Amino acid sequence: MKRTSRDIRTANRYEVLRQIIAQSPTSRQTLAAATGLSVATVATLVGELLDLRMITEVGFEDSAGGRPRGLVAVNASGGALIGVDMAETYVRVELFDLGLNVLARAVEDMRPGESRPEQAVGQVAAAVGAVVAQAGIEGARVLGVGVSVPGQVDRATGIAEYAPNWDWHDVPLLDLLAEYIAYPLHLDNPLRASAVAELWFGAARGREDAVVVNLGTGVGAGLVLGGGLYRGVSNSAGEWGHTTLVLDGRLCHCGNHGCVETYVGAPGIMLNLRELGPRSPLLHPEDQTATIDALALGVAAGDPVAVKVVRDTARYLGAGIADLVNVYNPEVVVLSSWVAKKLGAPLLDEVREAVRRHALRRPFAATEIVLSPVPTDPVCLGAATFALEGALQAVGQRSPKRTTPARSRTAPPS
Amino acid sequence: MKRTSRDIRTANRYEVLRQIIAQSPTSRQTLAAATGLSVATVATLVGELLDLRMITEVGFEDSAGGRPRGLVAVNASGGALIGVDMAETYVRVELFDLGLNVLARAVEDMRPGESRPEQAVGQVAAAVGAVVAQAGIEGARVLGVGVSVPGQVDRATGIAEYAPNWDWHDVPLLDLLAEYIAYPLHLDNPLRASAVAELWFGAARGREDAVVVNLGTGVGAGLVLGGGLYRGVSNSAGEWGHTTLVLDGRLCHCGNHGCVETYVGAPGIMLNLRELGPRSPLLHPEDQTATIDALALGVAAGDPVAVKVVRDTARYLGAGIADLVNVYNPEVVVLSSWVAKKLGAPLLDEVREAVRRHALRRPFAATEIVLSPVPTDPVCLGAATFALEGALQAVGQRSPKRTTPARSRTAPPS
Repeated sequence: MKRTSRDIRTANRYEVLRQIIAQSPTSRQTLAAATGLSVATVATLVGELLDLRMITEVGFEDSAGGRPRGLVAVNASGGALIGVDMAETYVRVELFDLGLNVLARAVEDMRPGESRPEQAVGQVAAAVGAVVAQAGIEGARVLGVGVSVPGQVDRATGIAEYAPNWDWHDVPLLDLLAEYIAYPLHLDNPLRASAVAELWFGAARGREDAVVVNLGTGVGAGLVLGGGLYRGVSNSAGEWGHTTLVLDGRLCHCGNHGCVETYVGAPGIMLNLRELGPRSPLLHPEDQTATIDALALGVAAGDPVAVKVVRDTARYLGAGIADLVNVYNPEVVVLSSWVAKKLGAPLLDEVREAVRRHALRRPFAATEIVLSPVPTDPVCLGAATFALEGALQAVGQRSPKRTTPARSRTAPPS
Repeated sequence: MKRTSRDIRTANRYEVLRQIIAQSPTSRQTLAAATGLSVATVATLVGELLDLRMITEVGFEDSAGGRPRGLVAVNASGGALIGVDMAETYVRVELFDLGLNVLARAVEDMRPGESRPEQAVGQVAAAVGAVVAQAGIEGARVLGVGVSVPGQVDRATGIAEYAPNWDWHDVPLLDLLAEYIAYPLHLDNPLRASAVAELWFGAARGREDAVVVNLGTGVGAGLVLGGGLYRGVSNSAGEWGHTTLVLDGRLCHCGNHGCVETYVGAPGIMLNLRELGPRSPLLHPEDQTATIDALALGVAAGDPVAVKVVRDTARYLGAGIADLVNVYNPEVVVLSSWVAKKLGAPLLDEVREAVRRHALRRPFAATEIVLSPVPTDPVCLGAATFALEGALQAVGQRSPKRTTPARSRTAPPS
């Protein structure tokens, strides 16, 4: 119970800013109606956001007969946020204004054999420098950098505890990055980054309970619960990719057999294709992206092998998503990340049908299944949102240690 | 956001009463320290509970030099609560005082072929009458009756939407019961009842995130998240028994194949035994309870078939519980219900080892796995707790419609 009133204040601050970003300009009265908070509470929170220069007064609206109402809007140029998506095959860095519009972008391939932590850190640092220069903004205006790295991460210490695709163990990532980057740094993983992106800007906005299913090289589920991100007791929640779908099935890099990820992650989909047509021209043995692209084109052209692979994949995916629907009973399941984006509507249709076959009637009836509507990279956007949340959490905090982890952490093992 | 401040008040009221029940007598200052609430807030909530006669002033404690502190304690005789556990093979009804001590109990077998709704309702009504008479209390002191029925239930309408073991569909259970029972009625299912029992009185007390795994004829998981019961958007959360463990595996009565329940529910365990030793004397083909009893005795005696069956069952169970650990990252997993109780420590040891093999290292390290410490029937206790929560929710509510569903519901289809 101890964290209640502080958490509520922070959550209310998020909610008010979320509403202002979604619809600017707006009045305190409209915000109160949209959030269910009192006008007095909204006025206090708006005052804090004005003090932070995250929003700005933009005039008045007429109100029939009454006092004119003051309008506020996002102060897009009041600061900048950087999101870093360290994915298995690329590093992508985007710089956003406070309206979460992309101002600059840098993308680099992460080549196999070049994924040692020092190499990856060098790439990220160079790309962060590049986007700040490209956007032509002063460093002092960068409110923070959110960094997403796959696998298990410890937010408090900034350590990437286990990144299976690169075989990283206990890498003190934020400390390594802090040698190059002076802005406040925030570490998390792509499951939570894409969930926060949907919560603030996508299909989970205004929802109490949502699951954001990430389909990329790795697979997992970001959980939105009671209107906020659910992390679990050690920030490990959402490892749905490592739940057992086929007992004694395909070997997974986590050491278990039959994990969902081994059937629906990009390498799993390549294996589904290989099992169906070992010599299929759709298969690019060393290139996940090219293979998924070929499958998407194949489905569009009616290629029977491509159609069958997507159907088989959707069957695994449908059984796995039905598990989430049965356990979690969410309002919406959002399919996110690059595999979902590339395979798109044909995959979605098959998945919906497969979930219907596997899920219980009552929770299925309560759940929508949709593709992510976020137009940009949701992981970069979510990582930048973590930096925004960090800046909002600092409001009224005397010792802002949780928002500048790079400076306040104790020295991690190297 | 709309429900926030009201929910917080209700949750705080629960928390203060929970602390008082756990440790009576106690002072407002001690309660404030234990809950993290201010003394002023605690004083207000204590005042409400005193007005309800749920607690009582019991004198003062010395405080070195300062003003003597007033002490409060549960007013055990201030009211009675009834919990009803309508299980697949029995109906159990218990009457509790406000300290949640059992004052009276009635248990009846639910015989196959006698599970039509009217028959079951008659049994429950008779048993409720019996426990009130047996306890020798006035009806006016019964604050409410919580009823647990397996499967999918709609709390708001009091309808048992789908109870697979009896093939009930859309049974207006609370309306049927209200023809016999005048006390406020509250409907839910055993997953949530046993989770609430652990949250108030058992292994989830004071925990933020816990999973209560119910092992009976049916199987499921009650979820405690953020210190409260998690229900999902349509009160269907927790149907872990119907998640896929073995794609295309054993046929489940839900229509899916390979559900966890088909391997670790009592009938599933009987099938595990049958596959291992079709003519084993441990097997009582028509009697789940006798078979599980025989297995428990067999394990204690070192019978190799019994040991193997428990190990095989624990292997399925461990993979399924590892899924919960990976997705929810809870502090504690509690094994509850009658199968867990009967198989006890030998099952627990095997399950821990199996979860360790299947789960990711980080969430596994953060999770304890324990047997339920609740000494009585956790489903009856949890159902009675729903009645207690209903009475607490009514505080300060002008129109107590949510706490007297039997009277305020619209007529359901019959």
